[in-house]
Amino acid sequence: MKIALAQLNYTIGDFDGNLSKMISYIEKAENSGADVVCFGELATCGYPPADFLNFSEFIQRCNHSIEQLKQYSYKTAIIVGSPIVNPKIEGKDLLNSAFFLYQGEVIGTAHKTLLPTYDIFDEYRYFEPATEFRTIRFKGKNIALTVCEDIWNVGNDNPLYPICPMDHLIEQSPDLMINISASPFNYNQPKNRKEVILANVNRYQLPLFYINHTGAQTDIVFDGGSVVASPDGNIFREMPHFTETIEYFDLEDVISGGRTDIQPDDKTSLIYQALITGIRDYFSKLNLKTAILGLSGGIDSAVVTTLAAQALGKENVRVILMPSQYSSEHSIADAVSLTQNLGIRFDIVPIKETYMAFENSLQPLFLGTEPDVTEENIQARIRGLLLMAISNKYGNILLNTSNKSEMAVGYSTLYGDMCGGLAVLGDVYKTEVYQLAHYINRDDEVIPLNSITKPPSAELRPGQKDSDSLPLYDILDPILFHYIEESKGPEEIIAMGYERSLVLNILKKVNINEFKRKQAPPVIRVSPKAFGPGRRMPIVGKFLS
Amino acid sequence: MKIALAQLNYTIGDFDGNLSKMISYIEKAENSGADVVCFGELATCGYPPADFLNFSEFIQRCNHSIEQLKQYSYKTAIIVGSPIVNPKIEGKDLLNSAFFLYQGEVIGTAHKTLLPTYDIFDEYRYFEPATEFRTIRFKGKNIALTVCEDIWNVGNDNPLYPICPMDHLIEQSPDLMINISASPFNYNQPKNRKEVILANVNRYQLPLFYINHTGAQTDIVFDGGSVVASPDGNIFREMPHFTETIEYFDLEDVISGGRTDIQPDDKTSLIYQALITGIRDYFSKLNLKTAILGLSGGIDSAVVTTLAAQALGKENVRVILMPSQYSSEHSIADAVSLTQNLGIRFDIVPIKETYMAFENSLQPLFLGTEPDVTEENIQARIRGLLLMAISNKYGNILLNTSNKSEMAVGYSTLYGDMCGGLAVLGDVYKTEVYQLAHYINRDDEVIPLNSITKPPSAELRPGQKDSDSLPLYDILDPILFHYIEESKGPEEIIAMGYERSLVLNILKKVNINEFKRKQAPPVIRVSPKAFGPGRRMPIVGKFLS
Repeated sequence: MKIALAQLNYTIGDFDGNLSKMISYIEKAENSGADVVCFGELATCGYPPADFLNFSEFIQRCNHSIEQLKQYSYKTAIIVGSPIVNPKIEGKDLLNSAFFLYQGEVIGTAHKTLLPTYDIFDEYRYFEPATEFRTIRFKGKNIALTVCEDIWNVGNDNPLYPICPMDHLIEQSPDLMINISASPFNYNQPKNRKEVILANVNRYQLPLFYINHTGAQTDIVFDGGSVVASPDGNIFREMPHFTETIEYFDLEDVISGGRTDIQPDDKTSLIYQALITGIRDYFSKLNLKTAILGLSGGIDSAVVTTLAAQALGKENVRVILMPSQYSSEHSIADAVSLTQNLGIRFDIVPIKETYMAFENSLQPLFLGTEPDVTEENIQARIRGLLLMAISNKYGNILLNTSNKSEMAVGYSTLYGDMCGGLAVLGDVYKTEVYQLAHYINRDDEVIPLNSITKPPSAELRPGQKDSDSLPLYDILDPILFHYIEESKGPEEIIAMGYERSLVLNILKKVNINEFKRKQAPPVIRVSPKAFGPGRRMPIVGKFLS
Repeated sequence: MKIALAQLNYTIGDFDGNLSKMISYIEKAENSGADVVCFGELATCGYPPADFLNFSEFIQRCNHSIEQLKQYSYKTAIIVGSPIVNPKIEGKDLLNSAFFLYQGEVIGTAHKTLLPTYDIFDEYRYFEPATEFRTIRFKGKNIALTVCEDIWNVGNDNPLYPICPMDHLIEQSPDLMINISASPFNYNQPKNRKEVILANVNRYQLPLFYINHTGAQTDIVFDGGSVVASPDGNIFREMPHFTETIEYFDLEDVISGGRTDIQPDDKTSLIYQALITGIRDYFSKLNLKTAILGLSGGIDSAVVTTLAAQALGKENVRVILMPSQYSSEHSIADAVSLTQNLGIRFDIVPIKETYMAFENSLQPLFLGTEPDVTEENIQARIRGLLLMAISNKYGNILLNTSNKSEMAVGYSTLYGDMCGGLAVLGDVYKTEVYQLAHYINRDDEVIPLNSITKPPSAELRPGQKDSDSLPLYDILDPILFHYIEESKGPEEIIAMGYERSLVLNILKKVNINEFKRKQAPPVIRVSPKAFGPGRRMPIVGKFLS
């Protein structure tokens, strides 16, 4: 039996686009003599469809796509994910289903049992879990078909669910396992995914074919990396990351095993590719073309500019230098030399005149007050306003350059440097931004070395440095990581050897700045715990604040 | 048996505050000779604690509060909600529990079975559902204790869950039902709640004591309105809305019934009270005192100013008039007369000079372009910047005045009039804003009639009116309601008799402006479907856009 895995980049709600893409891959699979071609979870509508699932017209469109696909299933069978209406009156209205289509008919279905409802996932919001399990017979083989999370409750010390679907399916003596997924990227995911797949293969002693999505849906990136594993406990093949592709596998070859063919999984390289994918698909799926951003001469905006030029083409990136009286000469020089290295357009719009106008307008109200953070914020907000004005006039989309460390502690100005349609580095700690910069410069000096080596500064007052207000990033970032990624509380972090007052101060900063992050642009997710829908914190609350 | 219902305003994560408040009400209950006093769901930590539940130190603090409360349970027993660690290794780590404390011991617990995971609710994100049901014996009575949603699966045509906890508990022949809740307000909720309570009373023929929270947690408002219902199918007592209070009930009186004592539930009056509660608690729980907002002379900012003055005191509200060349004279006059009616401070900061400065700065880049929405947005953003600057300098919190109709169709400027810490009217359609204005003016003309009667305008270009860009609100709002509150798709709405192109145009506007709402301030929720965490839509997506 020849099995095709089609690892595709779907668009949420683009029924026609997703369908015609699948049809073109079905034709490839037919031409290659595949017996069955596998698409991803909820492939008809894209993942995550979120509350569109509450609209019956949306579900009708999904059903229509399945009806269409049936007509293409005469030569090569099709496995595809789509939501369907729960036939039972009790429980949630939908099931998250995998359809096995062959010769114009549905010859089997599998409904998802384990519904991820944590981090960025909200599946129990929409779906009723399946309670029955049935293998599907096709061309003399008995297939255990499952949807995504249903193979993830194996090999855990603390199982997230009280049941394990494959434990039921294995009783029906399947010959192979097929799992259709929509498994979002984080830099640990390629490794975790292979571990879970091998845990299944080792437990059930069957070959496993695992198909994933690729491409980005706003903040959520799918890295592809679909996997075929052999019963001998080897990864027979890991398909490329962040790439739309189809591959073909002979079942007997996979059962024979003895092969390990995996992709490189260097963390910084994966993050780099995920961010490029995130920028590229945000623009292409919204039918946008050109990006704009403010270039300060610092490392964050330099990295974002480079990523944008890579994702969109250098001709589609426009940068604005907006020096103030506090901007150092090297900042402008560093910014200009980056634009030269990349070959992109820049303009200079000094902010002094607008700043003076605000100072004049506010002078009667500010009489007798001392300069403070207000005046720094005015500068940041003037820059935001200028960028948005150029964006409005020319239809460019503003890219936000805030990094995760800044967003965490609120070292940023709401409606100022927090403006933008997409926060490219919002899930990348400052120390990781340096790693990205070095990765970008691995062959040539694209980002001026001076942007990397000088002490970070917002340049909103004379001689300002980040380290005036924040601990050094080498100290800050690990504490943030323990709190945000690891959900460790203050006493646990202090017990690891960090100074009490430092920990409490940082955690308080994170919590009292929840109101800023509430209004931040969507953050491209690359870590296991990104700001955004995967991290839901009260704005008003007293714990740790 | 004398039962006390303590309807309290908790603060999320304020363990000491919530505990000492409960202790003070236990003392009241003791002094009144109550046998048992009931607090709300998750009362130790406040609701919704969101991802703080993932922190073991947070759960330890909850446990500590329960330990403390035990010491106060010697005279009057205590029923109180708190999360606890799931004793089973499989499944989610927590249970959402009700504790029955008496004489220093836990004499019974009930764990929540039906975990709301829809709209603003995310409970299956954290909690494992209970599968066992046991009544609690206390002073010769057998009590069926449940948590919130566990009584809501009764009397529905389309039950949301496959099981019904009271159907199990009734087999143990309880004498009464007690339900502890954290049931957020929307203008339908007081009515829905009483219907569900009566459905239970009629089904099980037992008295029901239902205790709710009151007060606001950022966007989510609890309206109190705790209910005692008699087996004869009458609401024996509905406690006041939006008020912290304790009441006492003799079980025999309630069983006798024959009484119906409910609260008024006029929609506009409820919304008015909810918004006042939302503003008041946002400020008080964040330890903030004074609000600022821009006053345009239009109805939205007039209503918000009036609500803020009511919630915070007129001395704690500061308004800024920021006229441009396009501001009409009546706008300034109407704004000034509102401030005089309310007795609040106002300042005037014209925006002409700053606008000219931006025009000059951008002139080289904008050479040869025509004026468009860019220039309108610059004005709105200058106003946002001025308000934020005054807010930063004096520690006022900016209140946002966007209404739900504008937020829906994106008739607003991101980083301009969308600035603010809290969106007071973001869940109030324009047609409902008019109803609020009339309600506010029911005795005296607080809001100048001219602000109510003149055609709505953003005044960002000469002679501009909302109706230049939008359908009349009488037409727009019902279409938005069918789409947003009722989740009806375009074909369903068209089938109701609306013009096809109008419907498609409006729905498209709603969807393509998801990116703006992603960056909007938290919206005080008053409807069954508010923008914010209760409505989760993709930003990148093709359906209806």
